[in-house]
Amino acid sequence: MTAYPLTVATFLLAAAIYIWAALRVGKARGTHKVQAPAVTGHPEFERIFRAQQNTAEQLIIFVPLLFLAAAYWGDAAGAIYGVIWCVGRILYITTYAADAQKRTAGFMITALSSILVLLGLAITLVVRAF
Amino acid sequence: MTAYPLTVATFLLAAAIYIWAALRVGKARGTHKVQAPAVTGHPEFERIFRAQQNTAEQLIIFVPLLFLAAAYWGDAAGAIYGVIWCVGRILYITTYAADAQKRTAGFMITALSSILVLLGLAITLVVRAF
Amino acid sequence: MTAYPLTVATFLLAAAIYIWAALRVGKARGTHKVQAPAVTGHPEFERIFRAQQNTAEQLIIFVPLLFLAAAYWGDAAGAIYGVIWCVGRILYITTYAADAQKRTAGFMITALSSILVLLGLAITLVVRAF
Repeated sequence: MTAYPLTVATFLLAAAIYIWAALRVGKARGTHKVQAPAVTGHPEFERIFRAQQNTAEQLIIFVPLLFLAAAYWGDAAGAIYGVIWCVGRILYITTYAADAQKRTAGFMITALSSILVLLGLAITLVVRAF
Repeated sequence: MTAYPLTVATFLLAAAIYIWAALRVGKARGTHKVQAPAVTGHPEFERIFRAQQNTAEQLIIFVPLLFLAAAYWGDAAGAIYGVIWCVGRILYITTYAADAQKRTAGFMITALSSILVLLGLAITLVVRAF
Repeated sequence: MTAYPLTVATFLLAAAIYIWAALRVGKARGTHKVQAPAVTGHPEFERIFRAQQNTAEQLIIFVPLLFLAAAYWGDAAGAIYGVIWCVGRILYITTYAADAQKRTAGFMITALSSILVLLGLAITLVVRAF
């Protein structure tokens, strides 16, 4: 993985965004008095919580796809995917907290970029096999 | 990772199954009128949602175990584990949506295959150390 | 990854702790009669469930950070991070089940160790670039 420093840098950025999303959940617990283990009780808390949960859900496939993109297409390709994903997630986390209806743009940027990378990797595997 | 094309292919299949499980949640939100950020409100929605959540939970350890299986035992071993996991998950996601009691078979296939790979890797590490 | 056997061993331990946390959820479903797909209904069940969920959430970034720590700083560094994380998580899972207020120490050990590794890797990347 040390052969792909730009890709590793975007992974670290994505991990930092994810930690930031989790810190927002902790802060919202205090603001809206939602004590653990509860995860419901106030609409804004629930939006901030779901934004963090969805970031976790997408991170699960983003990380392996990111390093596979770097391994098959080079460090720059991995980094481009990583940066797009990070921008989309920052947008998603901030818009979702304000209004659940506005989360679509940020969601689409990260979801579609991951789906495109997945399809691209599948095509690369098939081409390489022949 | 490019040295294990069959294993990578099964990872891509597992990621596609996971995206499919997430698309089912989105569709069930519409069908049963469960608006984000809510994750409860209709039994079928809740089953489809929990099936996707549990797939995320298992994917977290499946992905590193998959690539470790390939690294220690070869590409074919990784691919066999990957295919078994994918079959179990498709079964789990479809049966859980229909009836929570029927999810056991699919769950056991993926959970037990991951536990066996984990134990096998632990034994491999111990044997290699001596 | 086979070049870092101690790091791999701590990953296997972390995965085993995670499976143990999930088995506790399954057992608590029976004890407190919380039938799937429900994830609420009894305070102790909810604490055990949230402890497993939070372990999943932290594992998502722990695993790539662990292997990056090994790749950049060597096998011993990865293993030290891995052992600290595992100790913190066992503490977290057991204390959270007893009392949500007591989960802080275990949480902090794993969260802070991951944040420190993330920051350390970012510094390493910057130093290596110049």
